[in-house]
Amino acid sequence: MTPDDEGTPYDADLMSAVADLGETLRGLVDASVRTAVPAAELHDVAGLVRAAAGRLGAATRPPGQLPPLDDPVRFRRVYNPVTGVGSALAPPLELREEPGGVVGEVTFGLAHEGPPGYLHGGMSGLVMDQVLGSATIRAGLWGMTARLELDYRRPVPLDTPLVCRGRVTEHGGRKSAVTGTIATAAEPDRPLVEARGVFVLPREELREAYFADVTDASGRHAPPSRPTDATAPARAAEDRS
Amino acid sequence: MTPDDEGTPYDADLMSAVADLGETLRGLVDASVRTAVPAAELHDVAGLVRAAAGRLGAATRPPGQLPPLDDPVRFRRVYNPVTGVGSALAPPLELREEPGGVVGEVTFGLAHEGPPGYLHGGMSGLVMDQVLGSATIRAGLWGMTARLELDYRRPVPLDTPLVCRGRVTEHGGRKSAVTGTIATAAEPDRPLVEARGVFVLPREELREAYFADVTDASGRHAPPSRPTDATAPARAAEDRS
Repeated sequence: MTPDDEGTPYDADLMSAVADLGETLRGLVDASVRTAVPAAELHDVAGLVRAAAGRLGAATRPPGQLPPLDDPVRFRRVYNPVTGVGSALAPPLELREEPGGVVGEVTFGLAHEGPPGYLHGGMSGLVMDQVLGSATIRAGLWGMTARLELDYRRPVPLDTPLVCRGRVTEHGGRKSAVTGTIATAAEPDRPLVEARGVFVLPREELREAYFADVTDASGRHAPPSRPTDATAPARAAEDRS
Repeated sequence: MTPDDEGTPYDADLMSAVADLGETLRGLVDASVRTAVPAAELHDVAGLVRAAAGRLGAATRPPGQLPPLDDPVRFRRVYNPVTGVGSALAPPLELREEPGGVVGEVTFGLAHEGPPGYLHGGMSGLVMDQVLGSATIRAGLWGMTARLELDYRRPVPLDTPLVCRGRVTEHGGRKSAVTGTIATAAEPDRPLVEARGVFVLPREELREAYFADVTDASGRHAPPSRPTDATAPARAAEDRS
């Protein structure tokens, strides 16, 4: 087991393999929307893809069980559709802390297109929900999205390095208000999209109802929660031992 | 060339192949997030995936050129990340007209997960942007997303048939206001997510600037526009001949 930069352990060989497959899948997804090969070749390639899926299907994790690489306390989620290194859907966006919030660079490709040449408007929503949510997590204020608002100032170009930012602006009790932006890396202070979100930690009983069946890879009950939640630090300490 | 239900022509063999590959890719994406095979097997499968991507990359369409199956007038987009039959990212959502708006059924899987067992909050944004945008298109009022607001009433379950609705509530000049919901198919009148959007047709000169390089597969300039736009009906008539 290898500790990551936040001190929680994971299987480095498995992480490397999941990241390898994730990157390769993203390459295949990109190739699939750019290709101009004839129909017969598309069917042949579909055969290869079915074979690959069949091999992955030889062993699967039980429903409700998180992947062994995931950390429900640190919110490391390898298949997250925005940030997951193993996700074929994710750009992926790598977020890190900066003073007051989180920041990350990302480039979208043709698979994420809406109007020709530009990012699908909904993709900005997908990404900003993650950026704002990650800002709450880094601030120890995890909650589920209760409201998300986006103002689209200019179209977001594809194949262009972008910078996404998010920061918690207010919090009290179970509720956090967060703002964020998408801009090009070349003009980081000229927002293309501005977002605001409200994230709410569900009440204990609701949280238990929502996540009753969620376990980590060892089979332990592992609902998402804030690090200040009574069960979380104990679990984190155990994981580090 | 085969006419589809809206009378525009396309290559049926190519459409069938793109849909086959799209469905197969979605199966692979799903398998990739459920798998529990060992690291060595993941690397081997990555090798297969690279081979598949390499074969698709043997011929690619030029930047700015829409796929031959796309119809810029009817907004048929085979690789749209929400509705595209060829998209590995799309659930896909199939939208149709209903009195006053559009409706479609969709089921999300583990690749779209946010909180364990539930849809990523941003995925609701991605889908609703598409649903609201499609409602404007069906009403002949295409515009780009200017604002999107989402209220999350309850978590959206995975592996559960959902119904999405959108309808234009107001329009004037270049601007349309649209509302929509996500609910389970079992309880379609109990919204899990409520959305509102404002879509704006960019001014002619801005539209030309945004989409200057966009062509259809024949090389003709093909910017997105409303069907009432001067160039669109002419192009549609030509396509049908």
